[in-house]
Amino acid sequence: MIVAMQDQATEAHIQSVIERMVELGFNVHRTTGATQVILAGVGNPAQFDVTEFQVMGGVQDAYRISSPYKLAGRSFRPEGTKITFRNGTVVGGEEVVVMAGPCSVESKEQILLSAQQVAAAGGKFLRGGAYKPRSSPYSFQGMGIPGLEIMREAADKTNLLVISEVMEISQIEPMLPYVDVFQVGARNMQNFNLLRELGHVRKPVLLKRGIAATIEEVLLSAEYILAGGNYDLMLCERGIRTFETYTRNTMDVSAIPVLKKLTHLPVFGDPSHGVGKREFVPALALASVAAGADGLLMEMHPNPDKAMSDGAQSLFPDQLTQLVNQMKALAPIVGRNVGGK
Amino acid sequence: MIVAMQDQATEAHIQSVIERMVELGFNVHRTTGATQVILAGVGNPAQFDVTEFQVMGGVQDAYRISSPYKLAGRSFRPEGTKITFRNGTVVGGEEVVVMAGPCSVESKEQILLSAQQVAAAGGKFLRGGAYKPRSSPYSFQGMGIPGLEIMREAADKTNLLVISEVMEISQIEPMLPYVDVFQVGARNMQNFNLLRELGHVRKPVLLKRGIAATIEEVLLSAEYILAGGNYDLMLCERGIRTFETYTRNTMDVSAIPVLKKLTHLPVFGDPSHGVGKREFVPALALASVAAGADGLLMEMHPNPDKAMSDGAQSLFPDQLTQLVNQMKALAPIVGRNVGGK
Amino acid sequence: MIVAMQDQATEAHIQSVIERMVELGFNVHRTTGATQVILAGVGNPAQFDVTEFQVMGGVQDAYRISSPYKLAGRSFRPEGTKITFRNGTVVGGEEVVVMAGPCSVESKEQILLSAQQVAAAGGKFLRGGAYKPRSSPYSFQGMGIPGLEIMREAADKTNLLVISEVMEISQIEPMLPYVDVFQVGARNMQNFNLLRELGHVRKPVLLKRGIAATIEEVLLSAEYILAGGNYDLMLCERGIRTFETYTRNTMDVSAIPVLKKLTHLPVFGDPSHGVGKREFVPALALASVAAGADGLLMEMHPNPDKAMSDGAQSLFPDQLTQLVNQMKALAPIVGRNVGGK
Amino acid sequence: MIVAMQDQATEAHIQSVIERMVELGFNVHRTTGATQVILAGVGNPAQFDVTEFQVMGGVQDAYRISSPYKLAGRSFRPEGTKITFRNGTVVGGEEVVVMAGPCSVESKEQILLSAQQVAAAGGKFLRGGAYKPRSSPYSFQGMGIPGLEIMREAADKTNLLVISEVMEISQIEPMLPYVDVFQVGARNMQNFNLLRELGHVRKPVLLKRGIAATIEEVLLSAEYILAGGNYDLMLCERGIRTFETYTRNTMDVSAIPVLKKLTHLPVFGDPSHGVGKREFVPALALASVAAGADGLLMEMHPNPDKAMSDGAQSLFPDQLTQLVNQMKALAPIVGRNVGGK
Repeated sequence: MIVAMQDQATEAHIQSVIERMVELGFNVHRTTGATQVILAGVGNPAQFDVTEFQVMGGVQDAYRISSPYKLAGRSFRPEGTKITFRNGTVVGGEEVVVMAGPCSVESKEQILLSAQQVAAAGGKFLRGGAYKPRSSPYSFQGMGIPGLEIMREAADKTNLLVISEVMEISQIEPMLPYVDVFQVGARNMQNFNLLRELGHVRKPVLLKRGIAATIEEVLLSAEYILAGGNYDLMLCERGIRTFETYTRNTMDVSAIPVLKKLTHLPVFGDPSHGVGKREFVPALALASVAAGADGLLMEMHPNPDKAMSDGAQSLFPDQLTQLVNQMKALAPIVGRNVGGK
Repeated sequence: MIVAMQDQATEAHIQSVIERMVELGFNVHRTTGATQVILAGVGNPAQFDVTEFQVMGGVQDAYRISSPYKLAGRSFRPEGTKITFRNGTVVGGEEVVVMAGPCSVESKEQILLSAQQVAAAGGKFLRGGAYKPRSSPYSFQGMGIPGLEIMREAADKTNLLVISEVMEISQIEPMLPYVDVFQVGARNMQNFNLLRELGHVRKPVLLKRGIAATIEEVLLSAEYILAGGNYDLMLCERGIRTFETYTRNTMDVSAIPVLKKLTHLPVFGDPSHGVGKREFVPALALASVAAGADGLLMEMHPNPDKAMSDGAQSLFPDQLTQLVNQMKALAPIVGRNVGGK
Repeated sequence: MIVAMQDQATEAHIQSVIERMVELGFNVHRTTGATQVILAGVGNPAQFDVTEFQVMGGVQDAYRISSPYKLAGRSFRPEGTKITFRNGTVVGGEEVVVMAGPCSVESKEQILLSAQQVAAAGGKFLRGGAYKPRSSPYSFQGMGIPGLEIMREAADKTNLLVISEVMEISQIEPMLPYVDVFQVGARNMQNFNLLRELGHVRKPVLLKRGIAATIEEVLLSAEYILAGGNYDLMLCERGIRTFETYTRNTMDVSAIPVLKKLTHLPVFGDPSHGVGKREFVPALALASVAAGADGLLMEMHPNPDKAMSDGAQSLFPDQLTQLVNQMKALAPIVGRNVGGK
Repeated sequence: MIVAMQDQATEAHIQSVIERMVELGFNVHRTTGATQVILAGVGNPAQFDVTEFQVMGGVQDAYRISSPYKLAGRSFRPEGTKITFRNGTVVGGEEVVVMAGPCSVESKEQILLSAQQVAAAGGKFLRGGAYKPRSSPYSFQGMGIPGLEIMREAADKTNLLVISEVMEISQIEPMLPYVDVFQVGARNMQNFNLLRELGHVRKPVLLKRGIAATIEEVLLSAEYILAGGNYDLMLCERGIRTFETYTRNTMDVSAIPVLKKLTHLPVFGDPSHGVGKREFVPALALASVAAGADGLLMEMHPNPDKAMSDGAQSLFPDQLTQLVNQMKALAPIVGRNVGGK
């Protein structure tokens, strides 16, 4: 931490700051300039609040230097995290992995058809929501465990893996037999109790960025899961809220290369939620691959016009097939492949 | 709902839209202008997604007209909600109710001293966190139930009521004997499972606005609690995230009168989190009262410089006393009082 | 400036950074910790870009310490700036000064009536736009100089002062005979050429905060005017853009006390643009006074329903009168007065 | 326009709204539902303010239906706008056009070298600022006309075209002999007087999106230029402000396909300002091409570490060459080419 004192700071002010820094566990180096004193705190105390120093007498400003996350940082595992699944799919390697499927599980027929279409297009994961976070209590809230049974069966028939959202600690245990990846939605990115529990699970997790979260906050939330010992973690950019209302959210494509630099964790893009309208999903999907994504999470529905949720942003099956073909052509330009070589 | 068709929309496009509207339960009134057709959907289907229409062929735009919340709307209870507590305090009446105390429960001495100071200043509620949502897993996470025992004892000795944050469904039951109000924090505003459970509790709830939430989203989250049958609900503006970084958040003072218009629920302001630096808290507290708040939630600590969390935004006890005195003078100008007449 | 090097930074990296700092005019103090080197740059070079250091090899992060504005800083004139006008009105003193009037100058009758109503209510300035920045080229663009003639005449008859918006350098000269204060609108807050010219004028300026501007950016824009030698400058918070769409903008009431701390310049609030709907203007006006504003800028129209622009946010004359009366009662609570003692 | 009345609206309320609609030039169609009246205003009055209706008695909400821009809309020229330049370069056709060069013109040597490097890499335009909008009055403000002379000479020697920023009406005339495209910066996107003047010029303009502007606001600003008769207009996404501070701005890649749908004007991406750090520029450049951009505007400097402005986001010449090669491979996947076939 660094504390820059005001020009008019008294020696008493300076001593108060130094004392508090030492109390927290810092070694303090003092630089005395012509008009200003600067205090550099070296060391790495377990916790401190930089704002505390900002409001102390005589302080101009205070800066945290060490990043507040450790396990999520790229330097913890410079070569990057790879997660290998039972059907041989590797996330975090050369392949850009496609996860697709409907927003909600609605019926056995819908899911089996979806799974066949995803597999045919070259996808490796079937996505689908059995528990749905809906902003209105009057909207469809999901099928629950019976929905997951349907997903598991359809995925097994088509050699796909299952990813589905967990919203609540009490859902973890019952979901375990059915899913290959627990998805944590944007609204739960800072549900710290849920994150902590997922750190104790031995199953991969995909953590989505919150709509108003900074990249540092995403990494701090990742730290909760990693700190529990679960290192099979993926992150996902799925659009942030901005002033633009024509799109549902604004997909921060730059978050993909930035996260790839700052962390060793695989980074996905979700253009369906990112843009919210079907016709723009392919453009953002290709952009995500061009920007270095390790995978894409996309909504596709056998019949989007009849979907019980998010139909407007779900691709038609043919669109998915065509898009994956474009991705296959694009990936090698950035040193990757889609669907395995 | 209203659907405005494009100038070049074909009759087939128009019929598709009408069919889907009827299917959802709308009565459709068609207005045919010189260049444009407008379809007004009258009726109130339980659920529909306006985006679905926005992406249909030939559609220019679609608008939801009915507000998506019912029980939270002002028209449900035009006279406003009043909540009466066992010590006679009424929230939602003429009194602007003061809730104050430290961010975290740290010790018995700290809390008893805080309670005495809050009571002396004219506060009616003791606030304090036993479960703390912290963005870093390495920060102090709270004392849990022993902290609540301390709060209850201190509050009883000083004739105060207890408000404390609940973060997780599993905490509701154990907290019940100790709190008078469950506080739902900004990060949990869209933790819908938690909200639903709190709807089944027979104890008042104070729901804070999320840092990126619109006012409509706050009211939809309120609807989750009300729909469960718990009508003793208060809302709280506590600052939203903006581009300004000098303040911790930006307190949306206008949300106070806007909420007072749109809903019958009492509306609090939390200037401590709203601005995040002690020296600006009084200005925002007075502004909140001037703007019509039903109460204030503020952080005060017997010794802010030694606080385990949020010390930078906690008032000194003397500041609280002085501020409440200013509030007492100000409230009558807007037809209210502080501390009872 | 402070540069924190990465743990793995080489001595060559460190030397490159030191060389560049010295080249820019800094004296460099080096702190070598167990794992990390920190470089403190003391001195105050005329210009440098902190981002340049952030992308250098081996650098973890770089921080600007000195504030980039000088003349606008509170320490330049700790006692605060007072501006005295020819009718005796003082801005920046104990009085909270009221400026009111219609959005646009529409006719002689409208303006004369407005002026009488503003003066009767206790206002000191007549506001009104002769040049209008409109987001659509098809909207009413203002009356120009004839409008200013009308304002001047009406203001002189009622002992008011005139404030009106300047949008373009070429308008400064012709406006000079008519206005007492040049208003710079939010959209022109970073029209640096215009600001620079206004620095050479010997007439007070009121500078509005841009809708996405930080407080530091407001002060940097102020610096352009001050650097030209024009010290009669007022700032104005008028609402920033947030995700909330129910209000036109979100008035950042906290910007008022923050600016009062950071700068010596008088600070106004404009609740009309801040909230955009008439019914909420009084609440935000009172909140602004409670938060320490030196004055208010408000829209009032003799007949808002027929206004050519911004009718929805213009107060009725009676509302203004009533509001100023409330302000008169409120101001003494924060050590001020309205309308002179 | 559509006005939805409240359930409890009286007939007098309804008649007031109808009268005002008729007064503005609408034909009004009334739909009377069981509980609610809806008024559809057909016709296209030159100007009206939808907020005016939102605050009228008995009104629940009011919606503008017609888009407020006409000439900028895709339907005005469905086939898209193509701009042909004297060296044969066509913007808006199949080629994705590269514009590159330094942020600021610094010297003859720097610019000539830059031009050679841009031309060698496959660029068609030389960019460079002679007038610089800087947030601090103490930063380098540009070389002015002598800088433009240097650019013209270098561009002519290398068969490039010149694009440079205009900040002020008074600069238009002197710049005319030197530039092929006038660039309007983000801070001037709503400098309506400047836009209006550029509408009267017979030279292409590239208009950048403001950092907090919606897409509709960009199109309204475009309308100012088009309404003056200048149809040779390009738009440019260059990053918007969000809560993320690790990147300078957040490049809204989705704005590219959205603009391509809504308008006939060519759409550029500026990844240099979009992300602000050199290492991430290639990822965002490729993403922009993948998303359908008609061209890219990028900063490149012969020696970025010594640049007088924006060095941190300027590519090295070799990086530009490599990036353009990747773009050449990528473009055909989305039906385009780079550098001509």
